[in-house]
Amino acid sequence: MHYILKDENAVYYEVGFSCDNELLIVAGDERVFITDPRYTTEAKEAIKNAEVIEARDIHKAAREWMKRLGIKKLFYDPNDLRCSDLEQLQKSGATFRPKRNISWQKRIIKSEAEIAKIAQSAKLNAEAFEEYAMFLQKSAGKSERELHFEATAFLSSKGRYDLSFDPIFAINENAAKPHALPTDKALQPGDLVLFDAGIKYERYCSDRTRTAFFDETVSFDKEQRFANPKIQRAYDTVRKAQEAAIAAARSGMKACELDKVARDIIEKSEFAGTFVHSLGHGVGLDIHEMPFINSRNQQILEDGMVFTIEPGIYIPGEFGIRIEDMVVLRNGRAEVL
Amino acid sequence: MHYILKDENAVYYEVGFSCDNELLIVAGDERVFITDPRYTTEAKEAIKNAEVIEARDIHKAAREWMKRLGIKKLFYDPNDLRCSDLEQLQKSGATFRPKRNISWQKRIIKSEAEIAKIAQSAKLNAEAFEEYAMFLQKSAGKSERELHFEATAFLSSKGRYDLSFDPIFAINENAAKPHALPTDKALQPGDLVLFDAGIKYERYCSDRTRTAFFDETVSFDKEQRFANPKIQRAYDTVRKAQEAAIAAARSGMKACELDKVARDIIEKSEFAGTFVHSLGHGVGLDIHEMPFINSRNQQILEDGMVFTIEPGIYIPGEFGIRIEDMVVLRNGRAEVL
Repeated sequence: MHYILKDENAVYYEVGFSCDNELLIVAGDERVFITDPRYTTEAKEAIKNAEVIEARDIHKAAREWMKRLGIKKLFYDPNDLRCSDLEQLQKSGATFRPKRNISWQKRIIKSEAEIAKIAQSAKLNAEAFEEYAMFLQKSAGKSERELHFEATAFLSSKGRYDLSFDPIFAINENAAKPHALPTDKALQPGDLVLFDAGIKYERYCSDRTRTAFFDETVSFDKEQRFANPKIQRAYDTVRKAQEAAIAAARSGMKACELDKVARDIIEKSEFAGTFVHSLGHGVGLDIHEMPFINSRNQQILEDGMVFTIEPGIYIPGEFGIRIEDMVVLRNGRAEVL
Repeated sequence: MHYILKDENAVYYEVGFSCDNELLIVAGDERVFITDPRYTTEAKEAIKNAEVIEARDIHKAAREWMKRLGIKKLFYDPNDLRCSDLEQLQKSGATFRPKRNISWQKRIIKSEAEIAKIAQSAKLNAEAFEEYAMFLQKSAGKSERELHFEATAFLSSKGRYDLSFDPIFAINENAAKPHALPTDKALQPGDLVLFDAGIKYERYCSDRTRTAFFDETVSFDKEQRFANPKIQRAYDTVRKAQEAAIAAARSGMKACELDKVARDIIEKSEFAGTFVHSLGHGVGLDIHEMPFINSRNQQILEDGMVFTIEPGIYIPGEFGIRIEDMVVLRNGRAEVL
């Protein structure tokens, strides 16, 4: 299959380099990476398995390269290319056929080298959670907005690591929104805090969520004691669902079957109907990639897949709870990263 | 003209709200904003001039709405829609015609209310530059990476404002790369520092660059004294080019004519050939938008346009200098924001 890629992570996966203006064409053993003069020096240094072409008009260079090699048909991912990219490429007279998830399909089983990077990303992320918890212990009275900002310093080690997404730091009822934005609400002893964050290590993402009872001893351990009994029951239910899913995960099982393990526990509790999103998602170069662990996905889980397990309970106007870890399937079972 | 938009800033401009999963269709007086259940509550609160439709499949909802209103032809911006968006929309049987820059064309002349927001963004940004300079005075020995990270705290007022782009903080020869990434290089007295940064105020961007001589009295004033005479000559040339372009800018002149004013000064100096990018770009909801001030653009500049004036001199392996301000054309002339 001959194909063209533009997405930075898709291209990086193939040639070990990417930038914000590029095309990669793979046609059997022939591969070409096309970029503009800002990036050619670094591209030529980094890329060993593709020809590097410098061009002010990368689409025109792609058309010329295809013509030279007599390439008449290419696949593209319609989620990757913009209409203007396709418009420019089609001037070549070649046929462009849409095919979804070209790169995600290739990346779904991680190599040991990739798993090692993801594990290191998860380790550094977990350490940042611990350091941030120590900081939080002395942070009563600060706003969500300020604490959200301070979190980025711990996560990035003051700029050393990129974040894999804008972290979520949410207090009490704000945690009931799965995609909460920080407000001016001030943190007070007795509050519930939800913290969802990840970093990138050598471009590989991590993702972790903890929900905690806030006072001057706050930690992001899974063991938590909330003053409010309803919150404690919800927390215990989420924890049970999360740990049951980790224990039940098997290579050979369908993604939807794994989702069901956690979902059933919440549905059979007093909190039925409050787990409003899917159980998890693959993590790699992208923070959200295949496999998607939801109630509809029939995909068979396999050794080497890396994904999150993150059930939650959300009571609008009251509170939200989510516990999230990343796992890799190895020897048929889930190992927490 | 009936058209469809997906880009967040394009949609925000029309209805005063946007989110990361949306379509807006404008068909004469009929307007519909389509999003998924995560965002409908906020969308309905914020949007007064369009119908709000909630849908898990926003493309399907768009097809149904078009069918209901009998809409047979829509324009789209091929830089805005992905191939997969168009693929989904075309299932409606309607004709979709590409038209570039639909939103940028509408946004090129700013209203007084927009100019006021951009001016406030520029003011807050300039204040952050001053505060950051005070911090730099005590920062000898810190790395580019660390100083880049610290800059984000000053720019964002600890998370209160979003940044309009990842700032550039570059020392000496690293400043010779127009898109420098921070390294572990440590700041030393006598170094040249280049700082290019901007924030967003009520979604409107600012953009500013200063180049400075670093010692314990460093400031981002335009008046600078470098120890190295060649650097001083280059700095004075860039400053002369920048100030000449600001003074020469007129409504009614072509963008390429304004570029030429600054370019000629550098080309006639000993630094000919070192000004490797265009003179400036429009700034608004996007950090880069129309008008583009370069050597090829025949566009006539008009009152109400806001853009940067940012000539530079780059000597690879030695140093880079850039001075950038934002201006608005008013009463035929450029006012610095």
